[in-house]
Amino acid sequence: MKRKIQIGVIGGREASPELLELAEEVGEAIAHRGAVLICGGMGGVMEAACRGAKKASGTTVGILPTISSEDANPYVDIAIPTDMGVARNAIIINSCDGIIAVGGRYGTLSEIAFALQKGIPLVSLKSWNFEKFIVQANSPTEAVDWIFKQIGLGQIS
Amino acid sequence: MKRKIQIGVIGGREASPELLELAEEVGEAIAHRGAVLICGGMGGVMEAACRGAKKASGTTVGILPTISSEDANPYVDIAIPTDMGVARNAIIINSCDGIIAVGGRYGTLSEIAFALQKGIPLVSLKSWNFEKFIVQANSPTEAVDWIFKQIGLGQIS
Amino acid sequence: MKRKIQIGVIGGREASPELLELAEEVGEAIAHRGAVLICGGMGGVMEAACRGAKKASGTTVGILPTISSEDANPYVDIAIPTDMGVARNAIIINSCDGIIAVGGRYGTLSEIAFALQKGIPLVSLKSWNFEKFIVQANSPTEAVDWIFKQIGLGQIS
Amino acid sequence: MKRKIQIGVIGGREASPELLELAEEVGEAIAHRGAVLICGGMGGVMEAACRGAKKASGTTVGILPTISSEDANPYVDIAIPTDMGVARNAIIINSCDGIIAVGGRYGTLSEIAFALQKGIPLVSLKSWNFEKFIVQANSPTEAVDWIFKQIGLGQIS
Repeated sequence: MKRKIQIGVIGGREASPELLELAEEVGEAIAHRGAVLICGGMGGVMEAACRGAKKASGTTVGILPTISSEDANPYVDIAIPTDMGVARNAIIINSCDGIIAVGGRYGTLSEIAFALQKGIPLVSLKSWNFEKFIVQANSPTEAVDWIFKQIGLGQIS
Repeated sequence: MKRKIQIGVIGGREASPELLELAEEVGEAIAHRGAVLICGGMGGVMEAACRGAKKASGTTVGILPTISSEDANPYVDIAIPTDMGVARNAIIINSCDGIIAVGGRYGTLSEIAFALQKGIPLVSLKSWNFEKFIVQANSPTEAVDWIFKQIGLGQIS
Repeated sequence: MKRKIQIGVIGGREASPELLELAEEVGEAIAHRGAVLICGGMGGVMEAACRGAKKASGTTVGILPTISSEDANPYVDIAIPTDMGVARNAIIINSCDGIIAVGGRYGTLSEIAFALQKGIPLVSLKSWNFEKFIVQANSPTEAVDWIFKQIGLGQIS
Repeated sequence: MKRKIQIGVIGGREASPELLELAEEVGEAIAHRGAVLICGGMGGVMEAACRGAKKASGTTVGILPTISSEDANPYVDIAIPTDMGVARNAIIINSCDGIIAVGGRYGTLSEIAFALQKGIPLVSLKSWNFEKFIVQANSPTEAVDWIFKQIGLGQIS
């Protein structure tokens, strides 16, 4: 038996309609590829990504900062309430084979830092952009294609 | 959309053949009821429970103490490598609607303590037994029946 | 340079006057021996132990479950707000060379379990008592003497 | 009784001689002001800052990523071995009234992100510098002065 690829979508609880649409497309594309969607389980970009994944009948995991699975957005299949606040950001990153950042502010920045430190493939869609450190994608498809190529599954697409 | 019930199986990495068989039956019964199996993701009782759940085509989640999903037993579908050692025991408990303890020693005792503190339904199968605090079951079926009754799903069985 | 011994006092936020007095004496004795007092930083047994340690001009550390150092009891010198709920219990145990449990319920039980698992010297003062696993002391002096003997400092007393 | 101010010094385990010297001066200045030094407890910038603080007879706290207090650098007074890897970065930030970043890479970036998110005063000494987000200091004195001014203690210096 082999586990499915786990791809994270990170981004803020509050996001513009444009970012939410991008996140939803990213979530849908991840599910289409057969990967499990990992996220922080809350609203905004996380909820949009989960909604997209469910449109493609994917599986969604929400690693929550709070103690209650009631806080998960309605598109989370499996809720992991860590009760650890932002320290759960490290658990999200550890749980991913690849990460797509959609917008986001400081919480997202901490996750980007953890991903860069651990060397996990990471791509940004209108998220943080400092110089050479983070690959920028122009569309959900480009982001998802790049991530799957990085983890050696480019040919599957 | 409504999330599935999440039931935890807790117990040691090392266990007697008898305990492993009990754990496998418990895992299978949990999956038969349509619940997601939550566990610590390692070997022993955790692996046996996951193997049982997969026999019934269930979904299994391993919340690992280590940083690498490679450490998950081969029957884990979704790996959450926390890199938090025994502190991840609290996350396991927070992620469960009900818990079945199968054997186990101190690690299991810490999880039992967290479940009692949070008031999560808990039943013991040849696990810790102190007086009035922990309900004891005589068989996997009895344990699983009792847990689902506690979470208000007795009629579904 | 050599770090001071770090001794933990664990027990409940709510406790009888008798337990609070025991905790205060334990805290004072720990400071008299020149050790740093580690605790969960909240009220009840934790506050009483810290108050005792300060009477003997000791140093007190509160490893809090919440995000704010404002939640520390007034006798905590150094506040470590983990924002990790009960998962911080594992950090408390990891930070101690020896542990004295004074009363307490399930939270304390989880800490006892972690101490037994890691093999850290532990003694109970009217706390959990299951068979052969936990040494019982009859007085604060006896508890503190026993702990320092275990960590090879019996002669210093 | 009132707790002392707790100031964090963050930065890498590996650092140039120049950064180490800056960190040592920062640690010394923090102790001179009567604040407790909080850090990650390991080598490099953390060790240099602790060494500086001890030169001024300060108190140093090391919040370690590992399970063993043996991993603390020799200038740590109080060791908190979290066994939580990089998730301990969030605990470091939660424990500080102000933060001084000295050099550093991705681990430091995650801590900066947490500090910005929580709104804790933060100043950079040859550390990350993105636009308007992080105040840059030109010397240890300037960094420490700025931090104490931010937390309303400018006049005490």
